[in-house]
Amino acid sequence: MVTNTSVAMNNDTIVAIATPHGVGGIAVLRISGPRALEICLSHLSVESLAPHRATYCHFLDAEGQFVDDGIAIFYPSRHSYTGEETVELSCHGSRYTQQALLESLLQSGARMAEAGEFTLRAFLGGRMNLSQAEAVADLIDAVTPAQHRLAVSQLRGGYAERLKELRQQLLDITSLLELELDFSQEDVEFAERHEIRRLIATLDSQITSLLDSFAAGNALKNGIPVAIVGLPNAGKSSLLNALLSDDRAIVSPQAGTTRDTIEELLTIDGITFRIIDTAGLREGADSVEAEGVARSLRAVQQAQLVLYVHDNTQPFVKPAIPLDNKTVLFVGNKADLSAVARDGWIMISARQRSGIEALRRAMVAAVEPLMKADNDVMLCNVRHRDAMLRVKQALKAADEGIATLMPSDLVAVDLRDALYHLGTITGDVTSDDVLGNIFSRFCIGK
Amino acid sequence: MVTNTSVAMNNDTIVAIATPHGVGGIAVLRISGPRALEICLSHLSVESLAPHRATYCHFLDAEGQFVDDGIAIFYPSRHSYTGEETVELSCHGSRYTQQALLESLLQSGARMAEAGEFTLRAFLGGRMNLSQAEAVADLIDAVTPAQHRLAVSQLRGGYAERLKELRQQLLDITSLLELELDFSQEDVEFAERHEIRRLIATLDSQITSLLDSFAAGNALKNGIPVAIVGLPNAGKSSLLNALLSDDRAIVSPQAGTTRDTIEELLTIDGITFRIIDTAGLREGADSVEAEGVARSLRAVQQAQLVLYVHDNTQPFVKPAIPLDNKTVLFVGNKADLSAVARDGWIMISARQRSGIEALRRAMVAAVEPLMKADNDVMLCNVRHRDAMLRVKQALKAADEGIATLMPSDLVAVDLRDALYHLGTITGDVTSDDVLGNIFSRFCIGK
Repeated sequence: MVTNTSVAMNNDTIVAIATPHGVGGIAVLRISGPRALEICLSHLSVESLAPHRATYCHFLDAEGQFVDDGIAIFYPSRHSYTGEETVELSCHGSRYTQQALLESLLQSGARMAEAGEFTLRAFLGGRMNLSQAEAVADLIDAVTPAQHRLAVSQLRGGYAERLKELRQQLLDITSLLELELDFSQEDVEFAERHEIRRLIATLDSQITSLLDSFAAGNALKNGIPVAIVGLPNAGKSSLLNALLSDDRAIVSPQAGTTRDTIEELLTIDGITFRIIDTAGLREGADSVEAEGVARSLRAVQQAQLVLYVHDNTQPFVKPAIPLDNKTVLFVGNKADLSAVARDGWIMISARQRSGIEALRRAMVAAVEPLMKADNDVMLCNVRHRDAMLRVKQALKAADEGIATLMPSDLVAVDLRDALYHLGTITGDVTSDDVLGNIFSRFCIGK
Repeated sequence: MVTNTSVAMNNDTIVAIATPHGVGGIAVLRISGPRALEICLSHLSVESLAPHRATYCHFLDAEGQFVDDGIAIFYPSRHSYTGEETVELSCHGSRYTQQALLESLLQSGARMAEAGEFTLRAFLGGRMNLSQAEAVADLIDAVTPAQHRLAVSQLRGGYAERLKELRQQLLDITSLLELELDFSQEDVEFAERHEIRRLIATLDSQITSLLDSFAAGNALKNGIPVAIVGLPNAGKSSLLNALLSDDRAIVSPQAGTTRDTIEELLTIDGITFRIIDTAGLREGADSVEAEGVARSLRAVQQAQLVLYVHDNTQPFVKPAIPLDNKTVLFVGNKADLSAVARDGWIMISARQRSGIEALRRAMVAAVEPLMKADNDVMLCNVRHRDAMLRVKQALKAADEGIATLMPSDLVAVDLRDALYHLGTITGDVTSDDVLGNIFSRFCIGK
């Protein structure tokens, strides 16, 4: 476990292709580190680069042979993304040129950057805190407007500010307690302890409200979890297919996220819905009833929206799984074969693809309250939520310690614990393992 | 049919994502045209952009909302790739950011660039000639070092210069003939005609040598055509598989080229071999003998290198197809089952993957003379070859006209025809159809 001030800045110079993998009009190579300018100049047809100026030049290989021509830009240290001396080379976007230039720079002493290493250096150099660095990866992964807005707010908005405030409040509380420790002979403890408990309660309610925002934050980021459940043969998989085939918006697997189950993503009006464990529902539910019910149960537990599908040609029976505290849309399928109307239900025919648009509207309407949440200060990162839960736990321990008249130095341990876990979010304290985990999510070149 | 001076520069401003399609650390949008700066500034957080300076700023959407932050660079007209006013915006490489910025610029009056339109504008603006513009597409398509070197030499080397010289010689010849037309009353024609025929012969030999370089140029660009032939069951397809599975170098379909038959590409030491019509050889030859022979014949005709495969457990019979004037490597397969040695043959076992490395060396050695050709001035473009053949034809007609004492004005028609076809290569004369064909090969954003 190290604090970031003790993490030495790397002394080597890193290089990577920063633009997307593949062939295009142009590609950009980024070089950062103490030798960035020197290494680049040994491969350029010019003798120097004025800072921040787009300089046209030839790019040369190790033998001085012409490889390509393009633009070089030099960013001096403290004026670059990483905070280090950086050069960006803009070349033709052919496979060959990109590789040949990259290899030339590697030959001259640059090292291939690891995933996220430019942003890691920006963090280590104090250009951004850890939660902002994580937001950079989210920003790059963003596909929908909601994901983009969320990442931007995490990167630039009130979230980092709020974390700073929480930290300051925690520091204030710790100071008060330390003041009490200093004056412990003078019997001032009870008044201060009352005040400390009040401050802890205030802090705790702010943390609770942040934790409450996680459901919405996570839904914005990863899609709103939706379970499609119903009796065998109600038409669950036909409904899913009908929804997906109507999906004119962006549907894409989310890069950089790991999922245990196969999920379908569906975007309506820029809102991403994540259909949970439909593979299971599809394969299992109809054939093996018990397994189907178990899967449905799990799906409903995870879901923020449930589509309960009923075969409208059959009499309605009460769902076998509890749907309390869930937003449920009741969907009557096979409406083409039955005229039975049900109040508040959405009648569809998955087979004939009728009623699907109404269902899509209803899905959007059902999650609107969630989407309206103030996403400027919102918890959307599992790592942050876990840390925040630990902060809450440590605060609870501190509060109980004070309530039960524990010695101040023991209470101080709990407060320092809270401070520590809060610090892991912003990177005020961190470990190589945590950094490794976080930055391995990034693409090479960022 | 128009000359390029009559093609009016477009008055609209075009925009495209210039970096490869996909997600990466950064992406670059390029905007070119009379309103490039004005349109960009309406989406930037800064009020102006100094020329050639990397300016950090916020990128805003049509409502002035923050979309991303990044770098904007303004290139004034006559100092950009297209020759027009150009701005390049470097943003985060997420799908969302790229699309959102692109849409913002489109909303403000930019038009989506067509494939190759930036380079088309560079050509129309006189920044490069047509053969150089075509070389830009080749450069971007380049995968192997040989392809890259060839494209660079076409873009920057002696090729364009040689074309200019040929054009000047043709103009000189035409002038001489026109001089004769002016003085036609004064009976000077015979001396001049002799001189004109000498000049035409010189020009023709230069064109012939350029045409002769096409085989090598085309091989460098598209791969050296190789035919694998042999009797049924000799092991042709096993040999191909053995060669391909050993292929540790780059093997990739060539973007932007159209092929009538399925071909396998194989790169050894940076040299690309293109196995001709192996699908046919593989599927047809063994089952339907006649069809197999016909296919083999066609393959051999197109090939610059023939691998003749013989089942070494069988007695050798003279190949049923003519292999004259071809570089042939005789390959004895199934060497693991037979100890028969054959002088000058390469003994392999495709099944056991033995002898394959020796065969690969032999293939490289066999084509080395071709690869050593002076690729600085080399014909590698089918369109140029076709035009050059027409120049040659027109020169022949002119020469015959002079030899048979045709009136000078008729000879002049042939010379102008030669000049015209030469002009189509460099784009001194061109048509919208030709330009459309050429630039549709490009990617969007170049």
